[in-house]
Amino acid sequence: MRKSDMEEPIILITNDDGITAPGISNLIEAVKDLGKIVVVAPDKPQSGMGHAITIGNPLRLYPAHLFEGIEAWQCSGTPVDCVKLAVDKVLHRKPDLCLSGINHGSNHSINVIYSGTMSAAVEAAIESIPSVGFSLLDYSMEADFAVAKKYARIVVQNLLNNPLDKHLILNVNIPRADEEHIKGLRICRQAYAKYEEDFIERFDPNARKYYWLTGKFVNFDEGTDTDVWALENNYVSVVPVQFDLTNYKLKDELEKTWKL
Amino acid sequence: MRKSDMEEPIILITNDDGITAPGISNLIEAVKDLGKIVVVAPDKPQSGMGHAITIGNPLRLYPAHLFEGIEAWQCSGTPVDCVKLAVDKVLHRKPDLCLSGINHGSNHSINVIYSGTMSAAVEAAIESIPSVGFSLLDYSMEADFAVAKKYARIVVQNLLNNPLDKHLILNVNIPRADEEHIKGLRICRQAYAKYEEDFIERFDPNARKYYWLTGKFVNFDEGTDTDVWALENNYVSVVPVQFDLTNYKLKDELEKTWKL
Repeated sequence: MRKSDMEEPIILITNDDGITAPGISNLIEAVKDLGKIVVVAPDKPQSGMGHAITIGNPLRLYPAHLFEGIEAWQCSGTPVDCVKLAVDKVLHRKPDLCLSGINHGSNHSINVIYSGTMSAAVEAAIESIPSVGFSLLDYSMEADFAVAKKYARIVVQNLLNNPLDKHLILNVNIPRADEEHIKGLRICRQAYAKYEEDFIERFDPNARKYYWLTGKFVNFDEGTDTDVWALENNYVSVVPVQFDLTNYKLKDELEKTWKL
Repeated sequence: MRKSDMEEPIILITNDDGITAPGISNLIEAVKDLGKIVVVAPDKPQSGMGHAITIGNPLRLYPAHLFEGIEAWQCSGTPVDCVKLAVDKVLHRKPDLCLSGINHGSNHSINVIYSGTMSAAVEAAIESIPSVGFSLLDYSMEADFAVAKKYARIVVQNLLNNPLDKHLILNVNIPRADEEHIKGLRICRQAYAKYEEDFIERFDPNARKYYWLTGKFVNFDEGTDTDVWALENNYVSVVPVQFDLTNYKLKDELEKTWKL
């Protein structure tokens, strides 16, 4: 899975905020001289799509002339669809690396599960493509990506220069802080945190009720080895992620306690 | 999280094939005398939605008079939305158990990641509700659920009668086989398997290309402790699942090798 010495690495770039979001153009800008960049990204925002794939509808894929000198495609599907289409229909060989983001807003702790950004990265790793999702803790479309770009570049250089596990997935979150306050990168585990739902009820003009999903983020995890702790302390958090969801501890317990 | 001796357990039931699919009525049938059943399920098929949540659109929730004597609601959102709405708006207290399914088609190995059925179960466990997803290895709407019902009931009885981890998630798959050929339940790990994409290209009446997602399932895992092996050998596979996606092995490696 390593780049050969003869050929420049191919880097697939996608996101979940859509191909016109500032985050993806900043990511391209940050790494475009490190390899041949190919972009396949959603044609519209796909936040919160998790690992959704498009089964019941066909997909469209159109060239996007958005980034000078960069091959780019916009896809009507989810972030995971983008990775699948890129591998099967766009790229002539498996890329050396897949980058997803830079997401507008955090994907730390439990957000990894809801995030289209991270699900694209997970999908790439299932396809044996090492991958990284980048997220900046700033939802604004006017966010300042300078710090995020700097650390995205450091992480990508690190990965290109060192042997990679082909199933490697990194979830990288960048605090919203000026560069001089950032303390560097920190390897972390996913904090145990969740959203406490609080749906807003409204009524349509026909007096029928509808609901908007909202929720309060609650961190139950007091560990200092978590991504939430790192970000609160101005570190760039790096959580290695896996797609084997087996709970091995519970597996051992059940094997002992269940009478089968 | 255990039912009190005074009160019957509340069991939340959802699925991803939609509230009118035979799988969910079979699941209700199998367990309805084991507690108070409340159904909140999608109003249309939501297969392959993974852990998607509905952010950009409001949600609808209507009573569904489908199952005699059972409180049931149909929701316009994803399976994960159903669980969130059930907890926040439908149930007067946290349920003792969440069941998802019975899915029409397998959710073994990597399918756990794409599956709306399993994502609903995962969401429940994030909410501290022990949960089980059930899937029958038969895509047909005319599938015979007799064996699946029998084992769903055994699993639910087992969970109600024994102390539960509030974050417990089980991924239960039932082979397509006659009852006399089933060898029983088997605790397994998730097999390493994936889909090799093979998008079908077609052209619309305006000569514009579109794609249908198809793929060939490939199992790379030769272990005899996997769900794929168990199912091929006529066991009902039970994989304990977790929502902490941290790859701890890779975390240790990176802490040693990365110069931060």
